[in-house]
Amino acid sequence: MATATFQQPFSVNAHLNDHSRLLLPKVELSTVNFPANAEFSRLNFYPSFPSTSSSKEYAGHVRSIPNVDGSTKEKVPTPMLDMIKNPMHLKNLTPKELKQLADDIRSELSFMMSQTQKSFKASLSVVELTVAIHHVFHAPVDKILWDIEDQTYPHKLLTGRRPLVSALSEGNGLGSSTRCCESDFDPFGAGHGCSSISSGLGMAVARDLKGKRDRIVAVISNETTMAGQVYEAMSNAGYLDSNLVVILNDSRHTLQPKLEQTPKTSVNALSSTLSKLQSSKIFRRFREIAKVLTKRIGGGMHEWAAKIDEYARGMMGPPGSTLFEELGLYYIGPVDGHKIEDLLCVLHEVASLDSMGPVLVHVITKEEPGVEYNTIKTSNENYTDSCTSELLPCNPRLRTYTDCFVEALITESEKDEDIVVVHAGMGMEAPFQFLKNKLQDKFFDVGMAEQHAVTFSAGLSCGGLKPFCIIPSAFLQRAYDQVVHDVDRQKIPVRFAITSAGLVGSDGPTHSGAFDITFMSCLPNMIVMAPSDETELARMVTTAACIDDRPVCFRYPRGAMAKLNPDPCIIEPIEIGKGKILIEGKDIALLGYGSMVQNCLRAHSLLSKLGVDVTVADARFCKPLDINLVRMLCKNHAFLITVEEGSIGGFGAHVAQFISLDGQLDAGIKWRPITLPDNYIEGAVPKDQLALAGLSGNHIAATALSLLGRTRDALLIMC
Amino acid sequence: MATATFQQPFSVNAHLNDHSRLLLPKVELSTVNFPANAEFSRLNFYPSFPSTSSSKEYAGHVRSIPNVDGSTKEKVPTPMLDMIKNPMHLKNLTPKELKQLADDIRSELSFMMSQTQKSFKASLSVVELTVAIHHVFHAPVDKILWDIEDQTYPHKLLTGRRPLVSALSEGNGLGSSTRCCESDFDPFGAGHGCSSISSGLGMAVARDLKGKRDRIVAVISNETTMAGQVYEAMSNAGYLDSNLVVILNDSRHTLQPKLEQTPKTSVNALSSTLSKLQSSKIFRRFREIAKVLTKRIGGGMHEWAAKIDEYARGMMGPPGSTLFEELGLYYIGPVDGHKIEDLLCVLHEVASLDSMGPVLVHVITKEEPGVEYNTIKTSNENYTDSCTSELLPCNPRLRTYTDCFVEALITESEKDEDIVVVHAGMGMEAPFQFLKNKLQDKFFDVGMAEQHAVTFSAGLSCGGLKPFCIIPSAFLQRAYDQVVHDVDRQKIPVRFAITSAGLVGSDGPTHSGAFDITFMSCLPNMIVMAPSDETELARMVTTAACIDDRPVCFRYPRGAMAKLNPDPCIIEPIEIGKGKILIEGKDIALLGYGSMVQNCLRAHSLLSKLGVDVTVADARFCKPLDINLVRMLCKNHAFLITVEEGSIGGFGAHVAQFISLDGQLDAGIKWRPITLPDNYIEGAVPKDQLALAGLSGNHIAATALSLLGRTRDALLIMC
Repeated sequence: MATATFQQPFSVNAHLNDHSRLLLPKVELSTVNFPANAEFSRLNFYPSFPSTSSSKEYAGHVRSIPNVDGSTKEKVPTPMLDMIKNPMHLKNLTPKELKQLADDIRSELSFMMSQTQKSFKASLSVVELTVAIHHVFHAPVDKILWDIEDQTYPHKLLTGRRPLVSALSEGNGLGSSTRCCESDFDPFGAGHGCSSISSGLGMAVARDLKGKRDRIVAVISNETTMAGQVYEAMSNAGYLDSNLVVILNDSRHTLQPKLEQTPKTSVNALSSTLSKLQSSKIFRRFREIAKVLTKRIGGGMHEWAAKIDEYARGMMGPPGSTLFEELGLYYIGPVDGHKIEDLLCVLHEVASLDSMGPVLVHVITKEEPGVEYNTIKTSNENYTDSCTSELLPCNPRLRTYTDCFVEALITESEKDEDIVVVHAGMGMEAPFQFLKNKLQDKFFDVGMAEQHAVTFSAGLSCGGLKPFCIIPSAFLQRAYDQVVHDVDRQKIPVRFAITSAGLVGSDGPTHSGAFDITFMSCLPNMIVMAPSDETELARMVTTAACIDDRPVCFRYPRGAMAKLNPDPCIIEPIEIGKGKILIEGKDIALLGYGSMVQNCLRAHSLLSKLGVDVTVADARFCKPLDINLVRMLCKNHAFLITVEEGSIGGFGAHVAQFISLDGQLDAGIKWRPITLPDNYIEGAVPKDQLALAGLSGNHIAATALSLLGRTRDALLIMC
Repeated sequence: MATATFQQPFSVNAHLNDHSRLLLPKVELSTVNFPANAEFSRLNFYPSFPSTSSSKEYAGHVRSIPNVDGSTKEKVPTPMLDMIKNPMHLKNLTPKELKQLADDIRSELSFMMSQTQKSFKASLSVVELTVAIHHVFHAPVDKILWDIEDQTYPHKLLTGRRPLVSALSEGNGLGSSTRCCESDFDPFGAGHGCSSISSGLGMAVARDLKGKRDRIVAVISNETTMAGQVYEAMSNAGYLDSNLVVILNDSRHTLQPKLEQTPKTSVNALSSTLSKLQSSKIFRRFREIAKVLTKRIGGGMHEWAAKIDEYARGMMGPPGSTLFEELGLYYIGPVDGHKIEDLLCVLHEVASLDSMGPVLVHVITKEEPGVEYNTIKTSNENYTDSCTSELLPCNPRLRTYTDCFVEALITESEKDEDIVVVHAGMGMEAPFQFLKNKLQDKFFDVGMAEQHAVTFSAGLSCGGLKPFCIIPSAFLQRAYDQVVHDVDRQKIPVRFAITSAGLVGSDGPTHSGAFDITFMSCLPNMIVMAPSDETELARMVTTAACIDDRPVCFRYPRGAMAKLNPDPCIIEPIEIGKGKILIEGKDIALLGYGSMVQNCLRAHSLLSKLGVDVTVADARFCKPLDINLVRMLCKNHAFLITVEEGSIGGFGAHVAQFISLDGQLDAGIKWRPITLPDNYIEGAVPKDQLALAGLSGNHIAATALSLLGRTRDALLIMC
């Protein structure tokens, strides 16, 4: 690629310097070990040789890190990045050096990607942008806000968190979201997306009220522009007119194929000149003066002048540009997000202007199309068959609850042509991609628009279809009012498949689904259930398909299924509100909800070795509760332990309310609830998270032993 | 008004017909009794005399209905409306007759407004639009969807629900929201706003999948275009490209004054011709052909052709028009929403076109500016003083919890200049309007943008301010994810004032706040409290202002305060997690949360007459719970009754979890939770609603008597 070669900061002359012998073997090694990826080589992301000036600096940083497959991979040297401990160190770098820094960051991230299971695609697209932002703006005084967590790694590398990022390859690095508690350079936590303009506007208004002068930069992506909150925020920003720089990182990685079909916005010499002109002080001042003048003339004139100005620029700009102008943001762009000089020029102009209100800088970036998220790639191999109706050929090792859910849903949709699927969220798991290919025009992926997804499902239901609405637990929170008002209150049959319920491993508290049992089971018309294993999940899909007079939801966890070899059985619907006893015992009753039934079974195994005979029951339904089952457990046991992977106020609360009003508590049953603890659990491997939460089989067994007065055994079982 | 006079269907000649003598006195009476309102007379909403042809028809419908002040008001005859029992009856009417029908509806609604406490302003603005829609489209086969409930009265009058609407004046009419269960003409329930495009799109997609041909019309208003869901829905509608007619009723009744400052869109001869041209078959077909052609030529051409077309129309259209085009809707307008001929022409064209994708028809309407909502008017009289810092001169009869909250907040804001207020929701209560005037640039009204309101508050907090975020309980549901993710998880001090908590009288289930205790108290970092009376509310405002290390929320109900003459006391902050015992007894402990403490006190009065000695305690905090208080109550009583005006999973669940884990349940305390029942409670007067919910003082007393085995007394107390 001519441009990239031209901009390469280190010339071939570097080959001739004294360190060439020292470095050559390492560079070769890294070339061999790197993924043989056309996109990487095309981008020419790393210079062959470092410059003389920094050769000493980087030498100490060439490290060997064990690879995931056990082999050792040499790291490409990153001389410029090695010098940056703080964004202050960027200030005096030349554009050429900044370009080298960007290349170093890209190299570092590519290395990380080769070492871990994590995708850095989104971060790779904003490398130059991040460098330019940190060069122009003065964090942490100026506030840099990110909208989606996946883009924040370059920012983290530049703000003193390189060791933490590097530790990712050892499985104990930091999460991708920005966090106030982690660094002064993170003014706000990003995780669910869409928050940066709202929070940035709040900070901008606070700054103005406090008479400060710092600048606020909110980076949004074209994925998050599908979410309603972004419009609410932009509209309010346009109205409040505080100084705020919104940068739209447009990698055209949208879920709306329509946009993808249209020709890509041309990022060429003309648009480059144009965006520089738009951002120039003279042009903007001229426009402000023109505005004031026409305002004075008054009447319709003002409106027309603004409109002519807006449309004139709209004609030259890409699709979408006037949308932002309509919402009250001054549009500048498009800017090539990989040309650091252009970015510097535009951002310098934007940063130097006072009292101009909110500005939107449209930056076009490219995600590296050849780089795939390792795990998705692996999963995808199982989903090549998109035409036959056979069950999916899956490797049992990799089979997840989602695989099972998709299989069951395909089976149901073959029986009932009214079944349609609405999917909301950013990105899509491979099994859902398969489902989409399978169902074709009966699968609706609405992207990050959870509110719409729920009401849209209600509309589909009113139109005589049978919608399954798939939303992760953490993101269903975003559509809670629509669930209450548009679905439950109207008793419209929508089937909610709540994915990623409970703890979610390394994704941590931003994506964990802790509250759904609580906030769904308080709704009067909702049927709330959870499967204890994959067979139950398949049966609940069938059950949900049958329920056509009210809404229903079921939650299932992330990760591998409970049983590797499920029992062959006929998938029949479950009777509504009917739980079942799995193991009959006498000392203590363990009543599990959802995936926690498996941990109750584990506790049973542990306890039986200690001579304790427990009953294990699968509640299946939080609402309607199987009151006969609960009554029987109360009657036949002295102790009842309810176990759920959810917050207080959910399944345990429903059992407690029932046994209180039914007089069971008065009659002497001793009830203990085991729920998620009252704190956010940080990202870790699922097993550790469950232990932290006190939800492991051992914890349940220890609780049982404590109730029986066997405190010593309880302590021993926890060791 | 020249136009109105010109369009008046009945000429002065009618004076000369045989019935003039019979009718004259009645008409005079009604003129005398009608509110002497300049706006009404300007609109000339009712012809002086009916035509000969329908004189017999209406004669029987002139009714006398007692007025709220006891006087009797004569009803103006509505001959055309009297003939309409079903939208089918509109089909053969001429434009002139449709205009008369619109006048009749306006007359009917104005009469209703003079008789009731309800505002019909929003409905008055869409009278002609509703008539035109029902003339052109064929409900219930075609689906007419309304976005906000206040606009639905003309629709209800035309769809066989006139008796129910009329019954409003007797206090037992139907609610304003559309409801599937109420009529076949209501395909979806509207109440919270913003749902019509999402649900309409769902129905449109279902129609296409099922091969049907019905048409979907979704009416939105410029108030709801502030809400994010509308953008999510429009964007998805543009993508899915199903046939769907979206009508934007633009009465410029926006909360964003900026828009109001700009000159009103001119609805003149040019725009009228223009919108007719835009909607014409030939123009639209031409455009479709042009699109196909340019698509075939391919490349950038297609994009540019569409853009030129779009901007060319944008230049002629009002501000905002290209916004809809950017989102993928075909924009037509603006149309004068009070010119029935123009509406008919445009809607006929729109209805007759197939496979054109979503269309947005922009209709400009006027709300009657002189017509005020009676109650707001009355309240406003107390809020004329906007400069002094004295407590508000309020009539004790009318003082509400909101008055008290606003007073306390003003007092706090005078002590602490960092206090700012964010208000979200449609419209604003008079006390908040007063607060806005008082706080000036420290008061942010973001309109129907609850998601943004919460994250914006978080941003303000990060910027060093102390935000109070005021959102009604039912609408806080819409921002739940932002509360969880942007506030609670990050432990950012935002103070949520949850208004309209619990049951809300005539507004019914759409606006009742049943779930907030449950969904807020499961959040790990949130302090959740509720005042039992106005003094406690003032203290909680002070407490919330003091808490600066974590988020806090407090809920208060609608309506009049508990005490008419509050005790003069110094408003001091409450110790976090500290409840109090109000009355010491021995037989039974009543632990109330929030406003239910008052009902516990009522129960105490009833019970003491029957010789039962109960303790009444005010929990104040649901989280952190006052565990010492709960322990003491358990220790000193045989029975503990928790009482809250909220759903299952809230305060009672937190008490249950504590007394279970603390061993209090095992030690013999008998706990009974009293919560809202597991169903939606229809609109009624608050007293009746509380009785329906089983939350009245009598119900609490009856529960206590039952626990004591005095079943007969329990039954008697309920009579």
